[in-house]
Amino acid sequence: MHEPPVALAPADQRALIERLRAAVGAAQVLTEPAELEPALVDWRGFYRGSALAVVRPASTEEVAAVVRLCAAARVAIVPQGGNTGMCGAATPPAGGASIVLSLARMNRVLALDTSNDTITVQAGCVLADIQRRAAEAGRLFPLSLGAEGSCQIGGNLATNAGGVNVLRYGNTRELTLGLEVVLADGRVWGGLRALRKDNTGYDLKQLFIGSEGTLGVITGAVLRLFPLPRVAVTAFAAVPGPTAAIELLGRLRAALGSRVSAFELMQRYCLELVLAHIPGTRDPLATASPWYVLTTVDDAGTGSGLREALEAVLAEAMEAELVGDAVLAASDAQAAALWRIRESIPEAARNEGLLYRHDISVPAGDIPGFIDEGGRRLAAAYPGVRIVCFGHVGDGNLHYNCYVPGRRRDDPAALAATDVNELVYALVRERHGSISAEHGIGQAKLDELEQHKSAVEIELMRRVKQALDPLGIMNPGKVIRPAGPRPPAG
Amino acid sequence: MHEPPVALAPADQRALIERLRAAVGAAQVLTEPAELEPALVDWRGFYRGSALAVVRPASTEEVAAVVRLCAAARVAIVPQGGNTGMCGAATPPAGGASIVLSLARMNRVLALDTSNDTITVQAGCVLADIQRRAAEAGRLFPLSLGAEGSCQIGGNLATNAGGVNVLRYGNTRELTLGLEVVLADGRVWGGLRALRKDNTGYDLKQLFIGSEGTLGVITGAVLRLFPLPRVAVTAFAAVPGPTAAIELLGRLRAALGSRVSAFELMQRYCLELVLAHIPGTRDPLATASPWYVLTTVDDAGTGSGLREALEAVLAEAMEAELVGDAVLAASDAQAAALWRIRESIPEAARNEGLLYRHDISVPAGDIPGFIDEGGRRLAAAYPGVRIVCFGHVGDGNLHYNCYVPGRRRDDPAALAATDVNELVYALVRERHGSISAEHGIGQAKLDELEQHKSAVEIELMRRVKQALDPLGIMNPGKVIRPAGPRPPAG
Repeated sequence: MHEPPVALAPADQRALIERLRAAVGAAQVLTEPAELEPALVDWRGFYRGSALAVVRPASTEEVAAVVRLCAAARVAIVPQGGNTGMCGAATPPAGGASIVLSLARMNRVLALDTSNDTITVQAGCVLADIQRRAAEAGRLFPLSLGAEGSCQIGGNLATNAGGVNVLRYGNTRELTLGLEVVLADGRVWGGLRALRKDNTGYDLKQLFIGSEGTLGVITGAVLRLFPLPRVAVTAFAAVPGPTAAIELLGRLRAALGSRVSAFELMQRYCLELVLAHIPGTRDPLATASPWYVLTTVDDAGTGSGLREALEAVLAEAMEAELVGDAVLAASDAQAAALWRIRESIPEAARNEGLLYRHDISVPAGDIPGFIDEGGRRLAAAYPGVRIVCFGHVGDGNLHYNCYVPGRRRDDPAALAATDVNELVYALVRERHGSISAEHGIGQAKLDELEQHKSAVEIELMRRVKQALDPLGIMNPGKVIRPAGPRPPAG
Repeated sequence: MHEPPVALAPADQRALIERLRAAVGAAQVLTEPAELEPALVDWRGFYRGSALAVVRPASTEEVAAVVRLCAAARVAIVPQGGNTGMCGAATPPAGGASIVLSLARMNRVLALDTSNDTITVQAGCVLADIQRRAAEAGRLFPLSLGAEGSCQIGGNLATNAGGVNVLRYGNTRELTLGLEVVLADGRVWGGLRALRKDNTGYDLKQLFIGSEGTLGVITGAVLRLFPLPRVAVTAFAAVPGPTAAIELLGRLRAALGSRVSAFELMQRYCLELVLAHIPGTRDPLATASPWYVLTTVDDAGTGSGLREALEAVLAEAMEAELVGDAVLAASDAQAAALWRIRESIPEAARNEGLLYRHDISVPAGDIPGFIDEGGRRLAAAYPGVRIVCFGHVGDGNLHYNCYVPGRRRDDPAALAATDVNELVYALVRERHGSISAEHGIGQAKLDELEQHKSAVEIELMRRVKQALDPLGIMNPGKVIRPAGPRPPAG
């Protein structure tokens, strides 16, 4: 079974480092503590590990050479992109002797084909750079999320990133036509196909997308492009609650079809956190409302009447008391300011104190019930609890986070407590939802995965892991553990 | 390694049949030759096999019981839905002693949720029934293909069916949120999730979609629904050639964005075949053109101005000499008549004689070059060759078929010849395309798969097969062969 590798003797470690230097160049194998530091901790400082070296290959062939050397030495490999993940998947294990494999130097766009609407990229491309290159060619690459200025597409692929445009364009998985992967034995699977239809056997790329580096190293991808919207209108609307929000989304879709590209829900408390912590933000509406939605509709065609159609839906929704007040952005700058509120919620909430975070999904129609029942149960168990609830409600995906009175960030017991999560995940399970809608498992949710998946599914995952990484060197301790007794806690 | 099972001794066969009868009821285990016959041959009569029995379970539990019995006896299982496949995946091996597992009795819609836009179905549901149930609820299930009146969704899932709406809505894979699968050991993986976002570990459903019954038996699925188009306009237009067609598609998308839901290309010869062989069809245009496109644009919103916008694009395309003449359907009946031409091409072409068929894809922009170069090479190699070229050009998918003068259906040598296919597939390979865009591999393209895939990819596929079906009982002889020397021909 795929067992996490054991530590090498010091002499063997030195020999491996020398071989890695020969493979990728001495300057690209970092071993000094100060050089290693940024790669050993996640961006929020939740996870910290250790590593023999950070290795920075410049090509697929160099990645393959690094993996072959590590496989021969039975040394674990932790692929790392922009290091912006939410679950510690890119942070090496503590006390381990892994190699962090940085894809940062593989940051070239290899091809952009407007006749096929595809872009071929190396894994280390920063997401915003891909968006920009597409826009320069008159195309949209729709993946968009808060970290887009620093996250790398290899990480987006490895975690099947979601973001704000899933409603219309799907997750990263749905945006991917082909992949190049260095396998756990160092061979290269060249699957950089630019085809919208290809039914020649098992769709292997699907295994690697969302596998968080545990089955191989994604080194390149062919991604789908779309017509660049020529007209976009953004609205921020007060709604009495989640049920009204879902009803409003239904009306928007009935009137505008697939032109509804984003539809986000947020609680008043989220807005208050942003106003308190993020300079330069302001309340878009004159009076307070318990809930808000933020939506963008756009059109790659001429878009005639788009703004008027959105106004008409909102006006009818006001008459039906689904919407209290609403503002339409009059310019791109105003639209950006509205979106900045939404994008700043995580940062604003982080500044407030210790937060129990949940990235959950349920069937979209169950969102109001989930929010009602979750609020009731949390208030009963934790009097005074404050809930930070926002998210991609059109996808059934909520970021459902809670402050519990008296639980402080500097209290190790509060930090380690899982009772709040257990309450929330129990409700998710009752409603046939997911305990990780878009953030993945990483090291953060290993225990929860085992608790929430059936034994059959856990075993299927282990069989896949065993089939593709029999030595267990690809990002061990992430996503799925080997079978057998659990290691002691701590 | 996953070896095809060997034949049972007659007494063991009888014992297995008795156990199967006990599991699903005696009336649901067919063994009489006349009862078996329809299940032993594919709908076109290209493939023929043999089987111990056709077993017709009525529930997931009964499927699981059948698989457990077959696994214990090491007897191969051939899942069969509507038996409308193009590559013989649902036809049992010749001379084999398999069980054909018919899903036909599992034909219930289990749930339809308009608040989540999902439908939950058993695998034996006929595609047209799912479409109808969705429409009755004011929703669209967009999968649409010629066989929709008899194909079953389990087969659509097992082959990742494409069809005419892939351009806008994707393949069956993209329409699927959850699956229930009976694994090769008879356990049930309950993955009937109705979630648009779920990043909890490996996305196992992706393995089974498109695996043509070689990894397990799909027994149910949760499928995505979409707003039902309220306005649809269909046009049939003469174009000078494929380059003009691609350019027209670009213009349509620029004006109408995602409202372009289908865009099909066909050669004049296809239309002539339909007019000759399909009663009640007529040429939609007054004068002949070498090529045509058939397109439908639709809108789930109010669709105001949709017809006018399509007319404007066509008028501008006429001025630019991209379109010669065009007709817009004035009614649903006229639209259906135009689509009947397109859907009748396979049947019309079958009536004409022996046809070398290819279901290929290339990057969409390479379609014109592929058609040009293919025509040149075929004409040089086979003077007088007639090409039947049509397909989903917006997806880069062509049905590219050829009659070769003098090759007759009743000539075994002509039937067995692969030279025409080799010529076409060599060109596909040069252009980084697929030798099976939407029809799958089945038993038809086993050799070609091994020739066209890299050794790494073949081995990855074998590892997946071994991981999920270590006994090799799931539809052996389809998609991927075990490693080792090839069996002698014949």
